[in-house]
Amino acid sequence: MMNKSQIPSIGIDLGGTKILAGLVSACRLLGEPIKVPTPKGADNIIEAILEIIANFQKDSLVLGVGISTAGIVDPNSGEVIGSTGNLPGWEGTALKTIIQNRTALRCVVENDANAAAYGECHASGLGHNTCVIMVTLGTGIGGGIVLHGRLYRGAHFAGGEIGHIKISMDNKRHCTCGLWDCWETYGSGRGLQATGWELLGGVSESQSSMVPLRDRLTTQNIIDAANSGDLIAKKAIEKYHEHIACGMVALCHSLDPDCFVISGGMSKFVDLKLLKDLLVDRTLPRVGEKLEIYPSCLGEAAGLVGAGQLVLDAVTEVEQVSVAG
Amino acid sequence: MMNKSQIPSIGIDLGGTKILAGLVSACRLLGEPIKVPTPKGADNIIEAILEIIANFQKDSLVLGVGISTAGIVDPNSGEVIGSTGNLPGWEGTALKTIIQNRTALRCVVENDANAAAYGECHASGLGHNTCVIMVTLGTGIGGGIVLHGRLYRGAHFAGGEIGHIKISMDNKRHCTCGLWDCWETYGSGRGLQATGWELLGGVSESQSSMVPLRDRLTTQNIIDAANSGDLIAKKAIEKYHEHIACGMVALCHSLDPDCFVISGGMSKFVDLKLLKDLLVDRTLPRVGEKLEIYPSCLGEAAGLVGAGQLVLDAVTEVEQVSVAG
Repeated sequence: MMNKSQIPSIGIDLGGTKILAGLVSACRLLGEPIKVPTPKGADNIIEAILEIIANFQKDSLVLGVGISTAGIVDPNSGEVIGSTGNLPGWEGTALKTIIQNRTALRCVVENDANAAAYGECHASGLGHNTCVIMVTLGTGIGGGIVLHGRLYRGAHFAGGEIGHIKISMDNKRHCTCGLWDCWETYGSGRGLQATGWELLGGVSESQSSMVPLRDRLTTQNIIDAANSGDLIAKKAIEKYHEHIACGMVALCHSLDPDCFVISGGMSKFVDLKLLKDLLVDRTLPRVGEKLEIYPSCLGEAAGLVGAGQLVLDAVTEVEQVSVAG
Repeated sequence: MMNKSQIPSIGIDLGGTKILAGLVSACRLLGEPIKVPTPKGADNIIEAILEIIANFQKDSLVLGVGISTAGIVDPNSGEVIGSTGNLPGWEGTALKTIIQNRTALRCVVENDANAAAYGECHASGLGHNTCVIMVTLGTGIGGGIVLHGRLYRGAHFAGGEIGHIKISMDNKRHCTCGLWDCWETYGSGRGLQATGWELLGGVSESQSSMVPLRDRLTTQNIIDAANSGDLIAKKAIEKYHEHIACGMVALCHSLDPDCFVISGGMSKFVDLKLLKDLLVDRTLPRVGEKLEIYPSCLGEAAGLVGAGQLVLDAVTEVEQVSVAG
């Protein structure tokens, strides 16, 4: 008979444009993930998820399904309770109940940033730490907090919304959320573009190759210019590191983490050694000096691996409780 | 025979100028606390603490001693591992071991802000909450974080050092810790004074009664002037609320707390209703709307009550474990 600990789960990461799915065991993805475009409308998304599950079940016994989704999730009910612009009509979906009823499989639903943080923490063997904070630097900034190996979700399932930490009182940068000076208006890809735009004000074409691009500047423009020795671009990258550090200082002086895991599309442009130096410089001695900063080890698969592992751990926990009882 | 749950502990709050002590039971101070000046030097402080303990033991059976002290504390070893300017020579004191060896009583040692947060949380019946954050607004800003009824201490026992959250990138206000733009350079009593000083720049005596006081402005001057209708003073108080809110926004978007408890000498000047409105305005909808802000219920006694309750709870927990085992 097969040992239950060897049976994988299905991990599904539901994003605004694509669904990524794979089999998960021991915090690892088994084989290559499958990728399908996200259909429009809640009903179609659910049908796509059910089809993915049925396909995996043809070839493998599975212990459950973990779903990582954009939006705010109540992990107890497994319902999507907070809206997300990327998935119109998704709010209010009782995802866990629907999937459990239609498949008879145990299902866990988790916010995508939280699922990714859980995956990164455990895949990197950091589950014994007091506090691991994942910072996802992309178009915006996302995050997840894992305390003593468990997800910290906050009082209203909005814990780890770290992109909206206010890092300035200048009211100069307006966030997509409607608030001012959120961390992500500085530390995300959009933030770097805004910093480049600001620095190019009053600069002549002889001083920077980016001047003609100013109003449609991309992060890649800035990176390329910096690599060619453009001083304004280099200054923008330097400031970008300062901006990322600023939000991390707030996290350091509240949660005093063991480590950060830095992921997301922008992370490849971040010099982790420089970031660590900035944090040592801008935090209390006990906090910054022992702090570690790691790159993501799961990359794009973090959400699906984390969601898959959450359902594996949920099953194990129930069994431990019933053995103890 | 007396039920153990009725036996009090001794709670001792060791500050830079005075030691406050009393008997603690069920998260309440029994009777009036005693107050003695803090002697100079670690040896003399320890003798003073032992004398206080001996005096309480003359009249009462006690279950243990909880000590709340300035500085960073390793609660496992009960050692003061981080320095504090207020208690020279105190760093390195193995306080718990010394007190246990000399009194044969169970001893718990905790950082003063943490002990106060624990006391406030449980005395207010907030121990069932996911996250309670105490913010102490005094000469500086201190804090403590209680998650699911337990103190959150961070990876290096520096969790809750919230006064050093960076809330600006202007590098305009230098903190006593050596860093720039820490929350407490804006949100503490000193912060309010600095805001008053800034606002009085270029203002004539006919515009504000505070002008002659500018270089030696006290918080009381500002409060008095505001109460007399001084517009600059009113502006300073208004900005002060904005500054307090700014650090709380960072905490809201990382920890998503159920509530804040506001304590400390400056808290009597804070309009909690206005603070709540500012937070609703500056946080994501799910985070700010359900947030509660409470005043301190223990006042000056929070540290000693919290420390006393920590030792009571430690004894109870050991007993529960041995019954279960």
